[in-house]
Amino acid sequence: MTPTVKVPDATVCLPPAVGRLIELALDEDLGRGDVTSESIFGSHETAQAIILAKSELVLSGLDVAMAVFQSVDARIATTPLFSDGSSIHSHTQVLRVEGPLRSILAAERTALNFLQRLSGVATLTRRYVHAVAGTEARIVDTRKTAPGFRFLDKRAVRHGGAHNHRADLGSGVLIKDNHVAAAGGVGEAIRRARAYAPHTVRIEAEITTLEQVSDALAAGVEILLLDNMSPELVREALLRLPSPGDPRRPLVEVSGGVSLATVRAYAEAGADLISVGALTHSVTAADLSLEVEA
Amino acid sequence: MTPTVKVPDATVCLPPAVGRLIELALDEDLGRGDVTSESIFGSHETAQAIILAKSELVLSGLDVAMAVFQSVDARIATTPLFSDGSSIHSHTQVLRVEGPLRSILAAERTALNFLQRLSGVATLTRRYVHAVAGTEARIVDTRKTAPGFRFLDKRAVRHGGAHNHRADLGSGVLIKDNHVAAAGGVGEAIRRARAYAPHTVRIEAEITTLEQVSDALAAGVEILLLDNMSPELVREALLRLPSPGDPRRPLVEVSGGVSLATVRAYAEAGADLISVGALTHSVTAADLSLEVEA
Amino acid sequence: MTPTVKVPDATVCLPPAVGRLIELALDEDLGRGDVTSESIFGSHETAQAIILAKSELVLSGLDVAMAVFQSVDARIATTPLFSDGSSIHSHTQVLRVEGPLRSILAAERTALNFLQRLSGVATLTRRYVHAVAGTEARIVDTRKTAPGFRFLDKRAVRHGGAHNHRADLGSGVLIKDNHVAAAGGVGEAIRRARAYAPHTVRIEAEITTLEQVSDALAAGVEILLLDNMSPELVREALLRLPSPGDPRRPLVEVSGGVSLATVRAYAEAGADLISVGALTHSVTAADLSLEVEA
Amino acid sequence: MTPTVKVPDATVCLPPAVGRLIELALDEDLGRGDVTSESIFGSHETAQAIILAKSELVLSGLDVAMAVFQSVDARIATTPLFSDGSSIHSHTQVLRVEGPLRSILAAERTALNFLQRLSGVATLTRRYVHAVAGTEARIVDTRKTAPGFRFLDKRAVRHGGAHNHRADLGSGVLIKDNHVAAAGGVGEAIRRARAYAPHTVRIEAEITTLEQVSDALAAGVEILLLDNMSPELVREALLRLPSPGDPRRPLVEVSGGVSLATVRAYAEAGADLISVGALTHSVTAADLSLEVEA
Amino acid sequence: MTPTVKVPDATVCLPPAVGRLIELALDEDLGRGDVTSESIFGSHETAQAIILAKSELVLSGLDVAMAVFQSVDARIATTPLFSDGSSIHSHTQVLRVEGPLRSILAAERTALNFLQRLSGVATLTRRYVHAVAGTEARIVDTRKTAPGFRFLDKRAVRHGGAHNHRADLGSGVLIKDNHVAAAGGVGEAIRRARAYAPHTVRIEAEITTLEQVSDALAAGVEILLLDNMSPELVREALLRLPSPGDPRRPLVEVSGGVSLATVRAYAEAGADLISVGALTHSVTAADLSLEVEA
Amino acid sequence: MTPTVKVPDATVCLPPAVGRLIELALDEDLGRGDVTSESIFGSHETAQAIILAKSELVLSGLDVAMAVFQSVDARIATTPLFSDGSSIHSHTQVLRVEGPLRSILAAERTALNFLQRLSGVATLTRRYVHAVAGTEARIVDTRKTAPGFRFLDKRAVRHGGAHNHRADLGSGVLIKDNHVAAAGGVGEAIRRARAYAPHTVRIEAEITTLEQVSDALAAGVEILLLDNMSPELVREALLRLPSPGDPRRPLVEVSGGVSLATVRAYAEAGADLISVGALTHSVTAADLSLEVEA
Repeated sequence: MTPTVKVPDATVCLPPAVGRLIELALDEDLGRGDVTSESIFGSHETAQAIILAKSELVLSGLDVAMAVFQSVDARIATTPLFSDGSSIHSHTQVLRVEGPLRSILAAERTALNFLQRLSGVATLTRRYVHAVAGTEARIVDTRKTAPGFRFLDKRAVRHGGAHNHRADLGSGVLIKDNHVAAAGGVGEAIRRARAYAPHTVRIEAEITTLEQVSDALAAGVEILLLDNMSPELVREALLRLPSPGDPRRPLVEVSGGVSLATVRAYAEAGADLISVGALTHSVTAADLSLEVEA
Repeated sequence: MTPTVKVPDATVCLPPAVGRLIELALDEDLGRGDVTSESIFGSHETAQAIILAKSELVLSGLDVAMAVFQSVDARIATTPLFSDGSSIHSHTQVLRVEGPLRSILAAERTALNFLQRLSGVATLTRRYVHAVAGTEARIVDTRKTAPGFRFLDKRAVRHGGAHNHRADLGSGVLIKDNHVAAAGGVGEAIRRARAYAPHTVRIEAEITTLEQVSDALAAGVEILLLDNMSPELVREALLRLPSPGDPRRPLVEVSGGVSLATVRAYAEAGADLISVGALTHSVTAADLSLEVEA
Repeated sequence: MTPTVKVPDATVCLPPAVGRLIELALDEDLGRGDVTSESIFGSHETAQAIILAKSELVLSGLDVAMAVFQSVDARIATTPLFSDGSSIHSHTQVLRVEGPLRSILAAERTALNFLQRLSGVATLTRRYVHAVAGTEARIVDTRKTAPGFRFLDKRAVRHGGAHNHRADLGSGVLIKDNHVAAAGGVGEAIRRARAYAPHTVRIEAEITTLEQVSDALAAGVEILLLDNMSPELVREALLRLPSPGDPRRPLVEVSGGVSLATVRAYAEAGADLISVGALTHSVTAADLSLEVEA
Repeated sequence: MTPTVKVPDATVCLPPAVGRLIELALDEDLGRGDVTSESIFGSHETAQAIILAKSELVLSGLDVAMAVFQSVDARIATTPLFSDGSSIHSHTQVLRVEGPLRSILAAERTALNFLQRLSGVATLTRRYVHAVAGTEARIVDTRKTAPGFRFLDKRAVRHGGAHNHRADLGSGVLIKDNHVAAAGGVGEAIRRARAYAPHTVRIEAEITTLEQVSDALAAGVEILLLDNMSPELVREALLRLPSPGDPRRPLVEVSGGVSLATVRAYAEAGADLISVGALTHSVTAADLSLEVEA
Repeated sequence: MTPTVKVPDATVCLPPAVGRLIELALDEDLGRGDVTSESIFGSHETAQAIILAKSELVLSGLDVAMAVFQSVDARIATTPLFSDGSSIHSHTQVLRVEGPLRSILAAERTALNFLQRLSGVATLTRRYVHAVAGTEARIVDTRKTAPGFRFLDKRAVRHGGAHNHRADLGSGVLIKDNHVAAAGGVGEAIRRARAYAPHTVRIEAEITTLEQVSDALAAGVEILLLDNMSPELVREALLRLPSPGDPRRPLVEVSGGVSLATVRAYAEAGADLISVGALTHSVTAADLSLEVEA
Repeated sequence: MTPTVKVPDATVCLPPAVGRLIELALDEDLGRGDVTSESIFGSHETAQAIILAKSELVLSGLDVAMAVFQSVDARIATTPLFSDGSSIHSHTQVLRVEGPLRSILAAERTALNFLQRLSGVATLTRRYVHAVAGTEARIVDTRKTAPGFRFLDKRAVRHGGAHNHRADLGSGVLIKDNHVAAAGGVGEAIRRARAYAPHTVRIEAEITTLEQVSDALAAGVEILLLDNMSPELVREALLRLPSPGDPRRPLVEVSGGVSLATVRAYAEAGADLISVGALTHSVTAADLSLEVEA
C-alpha cells in the first residue's frame, strides 16, 4: 500500500467529548488500579517503551493514544514518530513512550484499543480509496460509527484519504423514503427542506425509481442518492441528469452493497460519491503492540 | 447456526457508565436536532416500526437499543420479541417500536449502531463456541474491547455463549514477561502477587518457556497462560503438569494466533481456556435495520 | 404583533446537552436546598400555579421550563397552554403547574430564567422578521449565542420565525479574511474548502472588495457574505453576479451593523440573507412570572 | 465613564462548574472540528492575535476567555493587559493571544461569547452604580442570571462595582407573600425562618403594605424588602422604622420597576439596597473582537 | 432516646449533585455487574425485602436509599415506614422494598452504605442535642463533612435535631486569625467583610483574646466565635458583651474540644451556639440491614 | 504505634472517578467563592503553609490532598514529607504547601476532609493489623465504604497494612444464604457460580451450619465464609476441613461481630482472613490541620 493519497492534517484539537470517552475507557480498565503491577513493581521504576506496528497499516489516533498516556500519568512523555494518515510498514515504531513503568503498563491497553480501532478504520478506508484511484469518485463515510466515536471514526476516514458525509442529523439534509411518503412526493419533500434548513447546507434526496429524477431536479435537488442500484442502473440514472458541467446537474451519490470488489464499477459508472458503511461499522483492528525496552 | 448454546440471562441492569456512553452517542448524532425530519414531519405524527434482522445472527444489546429510544423520547414504547443471546434467523423481527415518528427516526441510527456492534460480537463468539463444541475448552474474551464498551462487549461475549476473562486490571492478576523480569523469575512474581492481591482472585502467569513450568507450580500458580504456542507445544506443556484431577493442577489458558481455523486444535490439545481478542476488536456489524410500518 | 409568521414545530426532543445545562442551573440555585420554604411550608402542601406573560411576547422554551419543574420534582404536573412560536398577548397564561408547593417554588426561578431568555430571543427575532416582511430576505442568526445555549438560542430564533445559519464550526464553511490571506486569494481558499469539506455543505466566502467577486464566482462560491457594507454597496455587488434565476448565481448574505432601523434597506437592496448577532447576544428578557393560585 | 468605582479583585479561582459550562460551550461549537480552518491552514502555522474593545466598557471575564483558549489548546499563551473590573476605552487591546492559528480561531467565538456577555453585565452595572453615586444606597443583583452563569454573572456585577444579593435559595432567607400567607402573617414567617435557618444568615421579608412593618419589626426582621413601591412610598415606610443608628433598624431594600431613570430617586429616598434584575437578565453584549496580527 | 426533638421535614428534593454521588457509588459497586447473583438467580425472580434497624437510631437518608434502588432498577417499588428524623427502636422495619430479586441485591450495599452513614450522623447529633436540652444553646455543624456529602451530612444534622452553620465558603463570613493578621486587626477585618459581603449574611469573627472583644463590637460583629476556650473563659467573655436583650449584643458561638462530656458545660456557660465537627467527621455507622422475606 | 507493617506503595495513579469526587467536593464548598478571603486578602498575596499531624496516625490520602490543592489553583506547589502508609507521630509536618494565600485557604478544608478520613481508615486498620501480629490471619476490608470512596477507602486499608476483599459485586463471587436458598443448596450454588464466573476468580461461600461444609467442599469451594460464629465454632469448623497443606483445603474467612477486643481470638482460632466492616464504615477522623507560616 503506497502513501500516494494526500491527507490534510485535519484536526484543530481533540474536542471535549473525546476526553469524556477516554475517561469512560480509563474508568472501566483502571478504576480499581492494576493489581498485578502494584504487587510487583516499585512506584519509582521508570522505563522506555515503543508502540510498534506489526502489520502494514495507515495510522490514525496517535494523538488519542498520547492523551491516554498523559491522562493516566502526566509524567509520561510521548514522542510521535509519524503523523496520522501515514502509511506504515510492518515492524515500524510509531510512538515512543517514557515514564513511570507502572503507569505505562496501566495505560497500555486503553491506548492500544483506541489506536488499533482508528488505524483499522484508516487502513480499510485507504484500500477503498486506492480501489477508485484515477476516477472522479470520492469515497465517503456514513453515520454508522461506533457510539461515542463519531468524531474519531470520521477523522480516521479522512486519515485514510476519503471524505466525510454529514456529521450528524443536524448538519445535513438527507431525504429518505419515509420523508418522501409523508410529504407526498420527492419534490415536495425537497421544497420543505429547502424552506426550513439553513442556507449553508445542500439538499440531498434518495430516489428509489428513475421516475423520481425529474421531480427532484425540478425542486432543485443538489445531491441525488441512488441506494442499492447496480452500476448499470446508476449509469442509466446519470443519463437523465443535465450534462456534466451544467450547474443544474446535482451530485450523484451511490450507497448500499458496495464492497472492495464492486466499488470501482460504481466509480466508473460515474458516481461522484460512494458511501461505504463498512469503513466504520466493520473494522478489523490494526495490529500494534507496546514493547518495553530492556 | 442452531441455538444449542446455553446462555444465562446475565445482567442485573445497565450500569451508569452505559448511560454515559448512550449520552455521548446521542450528543454526537442528535445534539443539533434532525433537520430533515423537522422540515417534513409534524411533531404529532406517530408510527409503528420494527427492527429486523437481515442476516442470521445472535442477538445482543436489545436493552441498550430500548434505552436509546427511551432516552430520546420517553413516549416511545418498545417491545422486545426475543431475548439477548437468542439465535435469530434472517428476516426476523426482533424489536417493536411505537411512538412519535420524528423521535423514532432520530433514535434509529444510534440504536442500530449499538445493536449491530453487540450482535456482531455475539455472533462471532457463537461461531468460536461451536467450533470447540464437545471439548472441555472454554472460549474467553480479552480486554481488547472498544473503549467505553467493556461492560457491553463482555456481556455480548456471554450472549454468544462464551465466558469472560478478568474484567479489568484491578479484578484479576495476570503476570506477563515484564513482571517476571522485574521480579527475577516467575515464581517470585507469583509469590509477590499472592502476598498482595485480594484472596478472592486467582493468580495467572504467562510462561514463555517450558522450563518455567516447575517454578510456577512451586509458587502455587493457579492459571498458566501459554501465549503464541502451537497446539503441539501446548500438549507438551500439559505433560509437565500434575495429572488431571489432581487439585494442584493449574488451569491452562492459550492465547495468540487463535482463529476459527485453529481454535479446535487448541481445544483438542487440552487447553482449559482459549482467549480470543478478535471477539471484540475485529467485529463485523450484524445486519439489522429499522422499518417504519405503513 | 400578529402571529402571521409560519413557525414549524421544530424540535424532536431536547438533546442531552440541554439536560446538562439544566443540571448546572439547578446545581447553582438549589444545591443547598431552599432555606426559606423549608422553614415555613410543610413538605406535604400542594398548590396550583400558572406562568403568566406580563407583556406581549413570542414564546420559546416552554418545554425547557417544563423539564426544569420535572427535574426538581417528578410529581409536578405541567400543562402547556400554547406552543413555542406562539405570539402571546400580555396577561395571558402560558403554563399551568401543579404539585408540591415547595418544589414549585424551588423550581420557579430557574424555569423562568430559561423561559424569559428564550422568549426574549424569539420576540426580538419576530420584530426583525416583520421588518422585512414582503421581501425575499431571510433573517438568520449567528454563532454569537450564550455559551451553553447554542441549541436553545437557535431554536428560539426559529420560533421567532427566522432561520438558522450554520450550527457550529464543523457544519458549514465560512471563509473569512484570515483564510483568504493564508490561501493567497479568495478563489484558492474556496477551492481548498471544496476539496476538503463534506459534499453536503455549501461554501460561503466573505468578500471585502468588489474585485473579489469574479474570483469567488470562478471558484464556485455558493454563498457570498458582504460584511459591513452599506445597502448601496450591496446593490452594487449584486450587479456583478449572474442574473437572478441563473443557477450559477450564489446566495448573498449581508452582516454587520444591521439594526431594526436598517434591516429593511438591506432586504430591499436584494440580500437573500441578513444575519443579525443581536438576536442572541443582546437579549431583553421577556416578562413572565409565576403566580401561585389561592 | 471614569473608573472611580473601587472594585475588589474578588475571585479565588474559577470553580469547577465554570469548567463544565466551558465544556458545554466547546462541545457545541467545536465538537465536529472547524471545517473551514482545517481545509485552509496547516496545523503548524502560528499567529499572534489581540482581543480589542470596540466600545467603552467595563471588563469582566478575561480569565474565562483565557481558560477557553487554554482548554482548546494548551499551547496557546495568553497575556491579560487589564484586570477585570477595569474601565476600558474604545479601541483598547485587552488580551494578547499567541499560539497555533487554527486553535486561536477555533476558540475565538466561544471566548468572545463569554467575554462579551460578562463585560456587558459589568458595563451596565457600572452605569447603575454611577447613577447613585454620592448616596448611601448599594446596587445589588438578583437570581435572574442566565442559567449556568450564576457565579460568573454575579462576579461581573461585582466587577461593575455593585454588590451581590444572596447566591442561591440555600444561602439566604427571603420571605415573600406566599410564605407570609402560609405562615399566617409576616411575623410568624420571620419567627419560623429564624428558628430554622443557619445563624449566619439574616432574615429578609418582603412587605406589601405598611401595616406589616410593625409585625415584622417585632419579629426581628433584619432586612425589609419593599417591592414595587414608588420612591414616595419608600420614604413613608422608612418613617415607620427605628431611626437611623438604632441597632434595631433593619436594612431596607427596594426592588421592582427600577431603571436607570428612576434608580437615583430610590437611593435618595433612603433605600439601603436597590436590587436590579436587568443587570443580568437583559444584557447588551459589550463590543469586543479578536484580530489576528499581520 | 425519646424523639422529643422537633425535626422539620426539611428538604425540597434531592439536588442534582446527590444524583452524581449516587452515580459514583453505583459505578464503583455495580459497574461490572453482580457475578454471584447473575450465576444463580433467573432474571425474572422477584422478592420482597425490608430494611431493618438493628439498634436504636435516628433515621436519615431514607429517600437516598430509595433513590438508589430506583436508579438500579426502575421496577423496584419502595415504601418508607418512617420519615427521616424519626427515632427508631432496635428491630424496627424502616423501608419496604419489592421488585426483581437480582436488582434488590445489587442495590442493597449501596443503599445501606448511604443510610448507615447518614443515620449515624443523625443519631450522634441527637445525643448532643439531648445533652444540652433545657438550655438556650443550639448545636451546629461544621464544614468537616465527608467530601461529596455536604448536603446530605448537613441535612442529617437537622434530622438529628441540630442546626446548620454556613453551607460553604461562599454563603457566610467567618473571620479567622489569618484574616485578622492580614487586615491588621479584627475590627478592620470585620469592616472589610461588611463592605464586601452580601447584605444577607452576618459577619462572624473568631477572637483569640478577650482584648479583641471591644474592637469587634465597635466594628459591628454579629457573631463571635470563641475557639478552644474553657467554659470559664466563655463566661468571662460573655461579661464583656452588651447585656442580653440589647440588640447590639452579638451571638456567641463556641468550638474546639467539645465532646458529649463537655458540651453541657458550654451551654450552661451561656453560649448561643456550639459547633461540633465530630457530628460529621467521626461517624459510627448506624446498624441497619436488608432482609429478603421468605 | 511502630511502623513495622510493610506497606507496598500501591497505586498507579488516581483513577478518573477520584477526580469526579474531588470535583463534587469543590463544587459544594467553593462553588460560590470564598467571601471571607475575597474581602480581606489581595489576590496577589502568597504564603507558605504546612499540614500538621496533631495526633499519632497512619497517613493515607496525601496525593488526594495534593490533587485538591492543584485543582483549586495550579500555581500551588505541594511537597509531601512522608509517603502514604507511614506511621506519623503527633506534631509532625506531613505536607508543605506554597502559593497564593486565598487559594490555599480555599482548598484547605476540602483537602483536610479527604486526608482526615483516609488517615482515619489507615490508622484504625493498623490497630487491627497489630492486634493479630504473629498469627497467620490477614485483616481484610468489606464493601461497607463511604459511597464514592471505594477506591480510596480500600487503598487506605492497604496503607494501614491490611488487605482488600473483592473490589465490587463484579470482581468476586460471594455466595450468601439467599443464593443458597435459591439454588437449593450450597453445593449447587457453588457449581452454578463456577460454571458462570470468570476462571480468574475464586468461589467463596458463606455457610451457616457446619453441616454445609462437606457439601461445599465437594463442590470445590475455594473460600469458606463463617459469619457470626464464635472463635470456638470457628475452631470446630476448621476441624472438618482437609488438613493444612492439603491443596483441597479452602481458605477460611470469618466476619461479623469482630472488634479490636475479639479479633485476636479469631486469628488464633486459625482463620485465614478476618473481614472488618468498621475499618471503613465507622471511621474517626485523624487529627490534622493546616497552618499558615508567619
